Amino acid sequence: MIEPGFSESRFRAIDLIRKKRDGGALSAAEIGYLIEGYTQGSIPDYQVSAWLMAVVLRGMNREETAALTDVMLRSGEVLDLSFLPAIKVDKHSTGGVGDKTSLVLAPLVAAGGLYVPMISGRGLGHTGGTLDKLESIPGFRVDLPVPEFHRVLKACGCSMIGQTERVAPADRKLYALRDVTGTVESPYLICASIMSKKLAEGTDALVLDVKTGSGAFMKKEEDAVFLAELMTETGERMGKHMAALITDMNQPLGRMVGNALEVQECIEVLHGGGPADLRELCLELAAWMFYLGGASKTVAQGKQLAEQILASGQAFERFRQMVEYQGGDISVIDDPARLPATNHRVDVDSSRDGYVTAIACEQVGTACVMLGGGRERKEDSVDPSVGVEVHKKLGDKVSIGEPLCTIHCHSDRQAARAKALLEDSYQIGPAPAHKTSLIHRAIYKGQP
Amino acid sequence: MIEPGFSESRFRAIDLIRKKRDGGALSAAEIGYLIEGYTQGSIPDYQVSAWLMAVVLRGMNREETAALTDVMLRSGEVLDLSFLPAIKVDKHSTGGVGDKTSLVLAPLVAAGGLYVPMISGRGLGHTGGTLDKLESIPGFRVDLPVPEFHRVLKACGCSMIGQTERVAPADRKLYALRDVTGTVESPYLICASIMSKKLAEGTDALVLDVKTGSGAFMKKEEDAVFLAELMTETGERMGKHMAALITDMNQPLGRMVGNALEVQECIEVLHGGGPADLRELCLELAAWMFYLGGASKTVAQGKQLAEQILASGQAFERFRQMVEYQGGDISVIDDPARLPATNHRVDVDSSRDGYVTAIACEQVGTACVMLGGGRERKEDSVDPSVGVEVHKKLGDKVSIGEPLCTIHCHSDRQAARAKALLEDSYQIGPAPAHKTSLIHRAIYKGQP
Repeated sequence: MIEPGFSESRFRAIDLIRKKRDGGALSAAEIGYLIEGYTQGSIPDYQVSAWLMAVVLRGMNREETAALTDVMLRSGEVLDLSFLPAIKVDKHSTGGVGDKTSLVLAPLVAAGGLYVPMISGRGLGHTGGTLDKLESIPGFRVDLPVPEFHRVLKACGCSMIGQTERVAPADRKLYALRDVTGTVESPYLICASIMSKKLAEGTDALVLDVKTGSGAFMKKEEDAVFLAELMTETGERMGKHMAALITDMNQPLGRMVGNALEVQECIEVLHGGGPADLRELCLELAAWMFYLGGASKTVAQGKQLAEQILASGQAFERFRQMVEYQGGDISVIDDPARLPATNHRVDVDSSRDGYVTAIACEQVGTACVMLGGGRERKEDSVDPSVGVEVHKKLGDKVSIGEPLCTIHCHSDRQAARAKALLEDSYQIGPAPAHKTSLIHRAIYKGQP
Repeated sequence: MIEPGFSESRFRAIDLIRKKRDGGALSAAEIGYLIEGYTQGSIPDYQVSAWLMAVVLRGMNREETAALTDVMLRSGEVLDLSFLPAIKVDKHSTGGVGDKTSLVLAPLVAAGGLYVPMISGRGLGHTGGTLDKLESIPGFRVDLPVPEFHRVLKACGCSMIGQTERVAPADRKLYALRDVTGTVESPYLICASIMSKKLAEGTDALVLDVKTGSGAFMKKEEDAVFLAELMTETGERMGKHMAALITDMNQPLGRMVGNALEVQECIEVLHGGGPADLRELCLELAAWMFYLGGASKTVAQGKQLAEQILASGQAFERFRQMVEYQGGDISVIDDPARLPATNHRVDVDSSRDGYVTAIACEQVGTACVMLGGGRERKEDSVDPSVGVEVHKKLGDKVSIGEPLCTIHCHSDRQAARAKALLEDSYQIGPAPAHKTSLIHRAIYKGQP
C-alpha cells in the first residue's frame, strides 16, 4: 500500500494526488508539474482525474487557484494586443438561457472608444453559446486567424471569434476530462478554466456576469458570489482590472432563446429597442466595462455613455461593420427577417388562469437543445433557425389557453418533447410571486 | 457544465461518480454496473479513478462495502471446496515486517483436523509476502492449477498458492489503478479487495491479523480496529465465520526479515522453538482458527490444542509433506542451513549504551527491500538470500558497539543504504520504554 519509490525525479504525480487528497496545498511548481505533464502526455488521465476529484472535494487556496490559472494560461498562445492605442476590455458570462449580451456589448463598448477582443465559446449543456448565435448570420466567420482578428479589432474596435487550438490547450484537455469524470462542479477549477482563456486574450480589464438561479449553473446565490470573488481575485493577482455582477437567471433573458432568434433580438436592442431586461443588463455591463476601461469616471457615468451610444445608432453601426469584416451577410443585419427561420410554430398554452410564479429556466434551455438549437453531443451540428419565443415572464398575468411561449420548429412531431418540457417548466399561481431584481449585486474592490 | 444526456442506458458512470462525490450511497446494482463495466473495459480508467477518489474522501456504508466485495468476488472464479470432509479455515494478515505466521499456521491447523486453503500474496511496499518466502525453498511451486491445489489440500490438509488470474480479476485491475492514483488508503476499498480474494478461496471461516504500529499500513490503532470491524462484518454478511486480532507491529515479528531467513525461523517454530513473540502469535491465531472452525469449544482450548500439535512434531511433518507435494526440495526443510544464504554479513552497531525505546519498523522492512529482498517495482525479481537479522528488540539493553542487527548481503557496498536506514531506525534511550502487548485485542461478535 506504500510505494517504495526511490525514483530520482523531482516530483511524482502519486505524491501530489495524495497531498491534495489529504487536504494539503500544492506549490506552484507542483501544480505546474502536474498540468504540464498532463498536457504533454507524460502524466496519464487516470491520475489527473483522481487529482481533480480530490480538488473538487478538498478545494484549493487562492495561491493554488492562481497557479493553476497561470500554468493553463501559459500552456498556449497569449495574444499581445499592445499595438492597440486604447484599453482592451471584455466581458465573460458563466452562461444562461437567452443570455445574448455579448452581441450588444462588443460593438457598444467599441463605439465608446475601448477595444473589445472577445473570444467566445459554444453552447454548453442547456445554455447557448455566442459562437453558435453569430454563425446564424450567413457567412460569419468565427475562426479568424490572429492577424485577421487584429485587423478587425483595429478597424471596428471589436471582434468576436472562437478559441483557437493554440489558446490554453491545457484547459481544453482538462475540460474534456472533467466533463466525463464528475469534476466540472468546482469553483476553483471553473475559475482557472475561465480565467486562463480570458487572460490569454490580452485584455486589460474584465467584467464577469455571474448568473444565479434556476437557469444558471450556480443555482444558489452564495455559490455565484463565491465564484465571482474567486475569479475577480485571481484576475487581480494577474494584474487585470476586475469586477463581477451577480445577475438573475430565474427566467430567460429577453424573449428569445435560439440562435437566429437571439441575433434578431440583439439587433432590436442595438436599434434602441428590445426587451427591457436585456437592454438593462447590456447597459449595466457596458457601464462597468467603460468604468474599468477608464472611459468613464464612475459606473453611473458609464451607463449614461452606454445609453447615448445606443440611442445614437453607433453601436448598431459597429455591429454591422464587424459582421461585414468577419464575412457575414449584412443584408440580414439590415433586414433581420432574412435570418434563418422555421416555417412552423407551436404554441405552449397556459392550462389555467393566474400569474407566472416560477419558470424552470434550465428546462427552457434544454427544450431549445432538444429542438436542435444546441448540442446533445459535442459533435452535433446546430440548427440556427429553431428556438423558443417567450411571451410570459415572471409575474405576468395569464389566462387559460393563452400562449406562454411559442416553439419555432419544423413540425409538430419535432416539437413534441420540447413542448412537454416547456409546459412542465411554467408554474402558474393565483397571485404574482415576489419579483427578484435583475442585478443582485456587484463584486468590486473599490468605490465604483 | 451539465450533460444533456438523453441516453437510454440504465446507468451512466458520470452520474454514479457525481452521486458518490456528493456523499450519496450507491445501490448494489450501481456498484455492479461500475465494476463490471470497468473489468470488461466499457468504463474507462479515468472515470473509475475519479470514483475511487470520491470513495476515499466520502466513504461507503456497510451495504456498499458488501456490494463492492460481492461484485469483485463474482468477477472471477470462486473455488468450490465442498468436497473436503471438514471445515475450511484461513488466516489473512494486513501485512507487516517479519510477519511469517502463515507458514506455521497452515500446517499447524491442518494437523488439527481442519483444512487450510491458503491463497497468498507477494511482498507489497515495505512488507514481505508469503509467496516470496515459499519460493526461497528451491522447487516450491506456488502456481498450482486448481486440481493440483485440491489434491495437495486433500492429502496434506493445507496448500499455499498464489492468486490465479481467474480469481477476482476486478480486484487485480482496480488495485493496479488504486496503486497509481492515491486511492489505496481507504478502509472500504482495502476491505473489498482483501475480502473478495479471501472469499473466492471457498473458506468457511477466516481469522484476520490486523497489524497496527510503526511497521503496519495502519499506524493508528483506531484505524486498524475500524478496518477489522469492517472486514469481519462484511465477511459475516456473506455467511462466513469471522474474527480479527489487532496485533502489534511496532517492531519486526520474530528475529528474521528476509525470505529464506524467515523460512528458517518458521522451521524453528514448527520444531517447538523460535522467538517467543512469533511462537505466541502463531498459537493465538491457530487458537482462533480452531475455535471458528469448530475444532475446539473455546479459544483457550484451541490454544492448548495448538501447543500440543506443535510439541508433537505433527505441524512440522505437515509442512514437510506440503513442501514435497508442491515440488519443493525437502532436504532444505530437513537441513535449513541449505536454504539460500549470503556469504557476507554487515553488523549495525549501537552508537550508545542504553535501551531500545523505539524501532521505525517500516524502515527495517524498507531496508530489506533495498537489499533486494522485496520489490521496488512490480516487475523486479526477489533475492531470497538477503535480509536483516534482528538482535535487539524493544526494551532490550544495549552497549555501545554491540550489534543491533546484522545485514545478510553480498557486499559492504550493497548494504550501505540499508545500513544507514537501519542505524536511523533504532532509538536508544537511557531507560526501557513502556512495552506494548503483542495482541492488543480481539474483534469478535460473540463469546469466544
